[in-house]
Amino acid sequence: MSTNCIFCKIVAGAVPCTRVYEDEATLAFMDIGPIVKGHTLVIPKEHFDPITATPPAVLQALILVVQRIARAQLAGLGADGVNVTQANGAAAGQVVPHLHFHVIPRFQTDGHHWNWKPKAYEGIAEIQALAKRITDALPGQAQPRTGT
Amino acid sequence: MSTNCIFCKIVAGAVPCTRVYEDEATLAFMDIGPIVKGHTLVIPKEHFDPITATPPAVLQALILVVQRIARAQLAGLGADGVNVTQANGAAAGQVVPHLHFHVIPRFQTDGHHWNWKPKAYEGIAEIQALAKRITDALPGQAQPRTGT
Repeated sequence: MSTNCIFCKIVAGAVPCTRVYEDEATLAFMDIGPIVKGHTLVIPKEHFDPITATPPAVLQALILVVQRIARAQLAGLGADGVNVTQANGAAAGQVVPHLHFHVIPRFQTDGHHWNWKPKAYEGIAEIQALAKRITDALPGQAQPRTGT
Repeated sequence: MSTNCIFCKIVAGAVPCTRVYEDEATLAFMDIGPIVKGHTLVIPKEHFDPITATPPAVLQALILVVQRIARAQLAGLGADGVNVTQANGAAAGQVVPHLHFHVIPRFQTDGHHWNWKPKAYEGIAEIQALAKRITDALPGQAQPRTGT
């Protein structure tokens, strides 16, 4: 438990929430500031952050709960779709530094639109150069086929 | 393989991409319309969609590749943060109906801001009613503690 973490306090019951699911390792509860009503957060009960520092087994347990909540939003709320989003770092828009997946029910009529503005690469060389920097930083991986 | 799926064609090599990682079950490649340059897609090689219809083992393999790519974006690109996003259904903004995770490197200076506009619940009763509809749609789960 991280002393000043609001999500750790929720897990401990020191701060209230509306729970929708819990098991030994995972808690899902309603986001009180929903992008779309029904918006649910899925977190590990133990404090981990960011995704890159989370034990693989924890992440694998979480993503299955995300899947269950998504199914339940479709079935229980009659949602037309679901967004799963997750932010790491203030630069990514993260506010609470305790790993959490947002599971957001979407409806054709919900009026929400993500700000999805693609940038343009200057050319294939720029794409390849960035891909190489990512690939080179993957430890112990077989090199993928390069190029396009 | 789904005949008209652009991602299945990429997996098959019939449509080019810039690969950053691949293994037997998973492919990661550069998004050519990046929200932030370095934006990578992680997909199962087999055609599954949406997340709710994807076998748990596939999802668990994918999320670990997402984690590796996020780490490599931090280390290789010097990113300040990472967003992981995933859309299911046109209502959620999904364009290609083949399961894919967006792994987006974020920089304090990247100028991107998600359209994150929380809605307001009318009160705790509304939150609890929606939570109950989600919880009731979770098959075979122990009922969570209800209320707040």
